Amino acid sequence: MNDNKTLAEAFKQATYPVGGHGKRTVRMIKEAFAELDGSVPSDQYGKGELIEDFQTRMAEHLGKEAAVFFPSGTMAQQIAMRIWCDARGLKRVAYHPLCHLEIHEEDGLKMLHRIESVLLADKHRLITLQDVAEMREEISCLLLELPQREIGGQLPAYGELEAISAWCRERGIKLHLDGARLFEIVPYYGKTAAEICGLFDSVYVSFYKGVGGIAGAILAGDEPFVQESKVWKRRHGGDLISLYPYIVSADYYFKRRVPKMEQYYRDAQELAVSFNECACVRTIPEVPVSNMFHVHIELPKEKAEPLLIGIYEETGIGITHYLRDNDAGGCYFELGLGDAYAALPKDRLRTALQMLSEKLGNAR
Amino acid sequence: MNDNKTLAEAFKQATYPVGGHGKRTVRMIKEAFAELDGSVPSDQYGKGELIEDFQTRMAEHLGKEAAVFFPSGTMAQQIAMRIWCDARGLKRVAYHPLCHLEIHEEDGLKMLHRIESVLLADKHRLITLQDVAEMREEISCLLLELPQREIGGQLPAYGELEAISAWCRERGIKLHLDGARLFEIVPYYGKTAAEICGLFDSVYVSFYKGVGGIAGAILAGDEPFVQESKVWKRRHGGDLISLYPYIVSADYYFKRRVPKMEQYYRDAQELAVSFNECACVRTIPEVPVSNMFHVHIELPKEKAEPLLIGIYEETGIGITHYLRDNDAGGCYFELGLGDAYAALPKDRLRTALQMLSEKLGNAR
Repeated sequence: MNDNKTLAEAFKQATYPVGGHGKRTVRMIKEAFAELDGSVPSDQYGKGELIEDFQTRMAEHLGKEAAVFFPSGTMAQQIAMRIWCDARGLKRVAYHPLCHLEIHEEDGLKMLHRIESVLLADKHRLITLQDVAEMREEISCLLLELPQREIGGQLPAYGELEAISAWCRERGIKLHLDGARLFEIVPYYGKTAAEICGLFDSVYVSFYKGVGGIAGAILAGDEPFVQESKVWKRRHGGDLISLYPYIVSADYYFKRRVPKMEQYYRDAQELAVSFNECACVRTIPEVPVSNMFHVHIELPKEKAEPLLIGIYEETGIGITHYLRDNDAGGCYFELGLGDAYAALPKDRLRTALQMLSEKLGNAR
Repeated sequence: MNDNKTLAEAFKQATYPVGGHGKRTVRMIKEAFAELDGSVPSDQYGKGELIEDFQTRMAEHLGKEAAVFFPSGTMAQQIAMRIWCDARGLKRVAYHPLCHLEIHEEDGLKMLHRIESVLLADKHRLITLQDVAEMREEISCLLLELPQREIGGQLPAYGELEAISAWCRERGIKLHLDGARLFEIVPYYGKTAAEICGLFDSVYVSFYKGVGGIAGAILAGDEPFVQESKVWKRRHGGDLISLYPYIVSADYYFKRRVPKMEQYYRDAQELAVSFNECACVRTIPEVPVSNMFHVHIELPKEKAEPLLIGIYEETGIGITHYLRDNDAGGCYFELGLGDAYAALPKDRLRTALQMLSEKLGNAR
């Protein structure tokens, strides 16, 4: 814990963070509102041009009938699960063992909605059609996360996705997309967001991952689904009198960053090659399929940390602010590329990765 | 509905709205952030100086051990009810028939938390000690709203409040304060916010009522209660990566408006006198005990609306944007005084109220 803090501190002091879009400061909101006229009216409990216009544009972008803005994905996705469970009269859904709902939400789905979860696949790999087809339990909804964040941002082949979608449709099982990082995978699949979403009955997207906004989410689907989700949004306490701080910034950063997703994806591929050339390092996936990947190091966290701190101090390059134990006795961290990477002096980055390779090689 | 829209339109075009702090536009956030340095770090999932500092100051102001910032009061209060119910192992709470949880939250308390409600008192009056003492059902928590908004913002005598508090404590029943408008009643009671909160086990306050912020709430209580509320906040989807747009603006407007609550209260008393001098008009309460009151008109909504529209057009004074039917065949609206009242040309206001009195007298 204390060691982690030291790595975090060294990272904070490093001039050039490798991932992300720069520091999360209040400058983000100032920038998003700088050119907006002060007389623009607030949204008001989900009504008003500001929120309705954004929802309409997002519904179009995602190829869905309607969309609703939520303060958080946690809220949006629990509600999606609840609606599909109520529709079928069966409170059971299936998802990956490392699904956000399973590991990051203090069991809200179970504690608030009394919905059971079926965990599909081994936690180290993606859900396959076979996993779905072999499932013994009846379910109302299958949730797929694209890319599967907790295993480095992996993606199934598009054909597999289509097959899972068809399988669900045939059985009246709703398919929900956890698209927290949907915009980030569009370049890899070579499909539009709307095409990908066409395989799903409901979709959630986030505005503070690759988009780099302040917070907020969109939940999209058909009109009755979206109407019902608004009622649940109020029940959850998410129907705020004003959501515009998040909406305006989501819109602002969406417009600026979505066109760059292809670049972030190429950058991730380039950087992964460099990491994979280091001794004792490998990335998952080996070849990234979005702007993100995991970096695994064959050294325990406690030994890797001081090495990294030394590198940050010497080069000014900040690789990660944390390390987590992996199952192989080593450690790992996540990288998601954004605007920061383009601003990085590449010679320093090369130096930093050479140092990493040497230090890890020596420590082995 | 269409008529209502017309009144709303006329109100929108009126130069001088009587209530509130002015139009809810994005200028509010621009103003709140104008002087804040851009390098101030965001809060991060409930952590960080920005949120922790504000929570500490609010806990002190409310005289409680700890406090937590929530995106909404709906979320904060359901969670308070849940914690107290879980603590006693009994999912039943009591409150006023026009409590926010009962009429404005799409039954979130029941649908998400499966908590039953006991409705105390007749909906036209305040809850008394007698109502509480005669309650047959066992409950875990009693919720009191001060002032009781839906009946014009009425308040019990302070002694009655103390007696109810003592009654609950003796029986191990938790007493929760819906203090959406707590800052607004401090002048009437002549007590500090902390003194009033001292009668309660948990307290919710809002930052967009009299304070006139953008959105957001504080829930305060003892340390274990607040810690538990943070877990539920995550379950509800309220533990956003960044709540700073609401926190910074809450802080900004709290500092500017809380010192003016005495003035808003005096203004409400003054204005209520003028309304009560009009034919066919009476205010509830007759003498306001906060910055708010209801104005009841002895004329059906459909007849009163065109009269009001005429007054707005002739004087530029906007009295209300809506009318609602009351139980006596007439109609009513709510007024909550804020900064707008001080900016009002008082001669025009006098003219507007004289016109109102004449028109209503003639229509009778």
